[in-house]
Amino acid sequence: MNTQSQAVQSAKFIVIEGLEGAGKSSAIALVRDFIEKHTGKAPICTREPGGTPLAEQMRDLVKIANETDPLCDEAECLLFYAARAQLVANVIKPALANGEWVLGDRHNLSSLAYQGGGRNLMPLVSAISDATLKGFKPDLTLYLDIDPKLGLERAARRGELDRIEQQEIDFFNRARATFLSFADADDSIKIVDASQTMAQVHKDIIAILQEQSW
Amino acid sequence: MNTQSQAVQSAKFIVIEGLEGAGKSSAIALVRDFIEKHTGKAPICTREPGGTPLAEQMRDLVKIANETDPLCDEAECLLFYAARAQLVANVIKPALANGEWVLGDRHNLSSLAYQGGGRNLMPLVSAISDATLKGFKPDLTLYLDIDPKLGLERAARRGELDRIEQQEIDFFNRARATFLSFADADDSIKIVDASQTMAQVHKDIIAILQEQSW
Repeated sequence: MNTQSQAVQSAKFIVIEGLEGAGKSSAIALVRDFIEKHTGKAPICTREPGGTPLAEQMRDLVKIANETDPLCDEAECLLFYAARAQLVANVIKPALANGEWVLGDRHNLSSLAYQGGGRNLMPLVSAISDATLKGFKPDLTLYLDIDPKLGLERAARRGELDRIEQQEIDFFNRARATFLSFADADDSIKIVDASQTMAQVHKDIIAILQEQSW
Repeated sequence: MNTQSQAVQSAKFIVIEGLEGAGKSSAIALVRDFIEKHTGKAPICTREPGGTPLAEQMRDLVKIANETDPLCDEAECLLFYAARAQLVANVIKPALANGEWVLGDRHNLSSLAYQGGGRNLMPLVSAISDATLKGFKPDLTLYLDIDPKLGLERAARRGELDRIEQQEIDFFNRARATFLSFADADDSIKIVDASQTMAQVHKDIIAILQEQSW
């Protein structure tokens, strides 16, 4: 019973954030393995927007360009938070309460950066974020920082860019500046220089994970 | 040019609100005819949640009960506002700017009453409402007031009740109290006693419409 209760207390929610092409996927694989070694069990992996059947349907509405009924900025932002509320209520919180670690591919910081910073909607995003999440946040966020020009070149090589990835470069520059300013103000957000070689990026990530007092 | 510019200035957004079984549908038909006679043109009719292709898809997500991934209260509220933002941006505001009257089957007051009052989520709903709508509101709201017991009996006779209509009676009592308290505080919301005969309800609605200084 003691081991169980310690596990319940110590389950963590770790999130990987970063612009397109920053190397989130390989970082997620790395952190997933680290958590599995550290805790003896693979974490619950989530992606946002999405991660529950209903949240995935909300993701589809955001991702699909619609020429006759273009998604307005407010609706985009509200859909992201609807999907996030659903994921937090039905997946993340139950997992943590059950002692299971959660590893997130994006979370709230993406909305603050893309919609708040990128689309200049910070008052709206910030109000919705506060009202919806009521202080709930990751224990640790790894923000993979990259110049948008370099990141988008990488993303373009992977295939077609979706509606959000087709924004102009200024949008991504504003998003990056927002990521960095939140990281600056919050000790639980760690910046990783994602312009380095993958080997060095991974080394930096492991060093950050080993620094934690878990 | 003058006629056009007067039409543009005077287009109104009128909304019919009320609990299930209050008689919204026949009231909408009545007001639609009144507007057509008054302006010489039928209004754009909207329903909420919904009213644009994307907003209708959001409506579907709210309306369908999902046992394995139950819609959490926050997500429900955010979906309603995503649909509303989309409808306001792509239908209501363009119509009004174009001099066309808009007649709404529900609008923001429903969220305040059902989610804010009914589900006891007023701080969340109120924050999202303010951040999303930024003061945009109907020129006139007709609230058809009815005791939930009577209204639900009428609604049940129409066929199967959906997820929201299956709430317990206290939910609807809280929603009704919220409708009434908003009507009390806002001169643009008029209360119609919907427990009367349909003929009397319609007479009261016409009297309110004729009182307006349009």
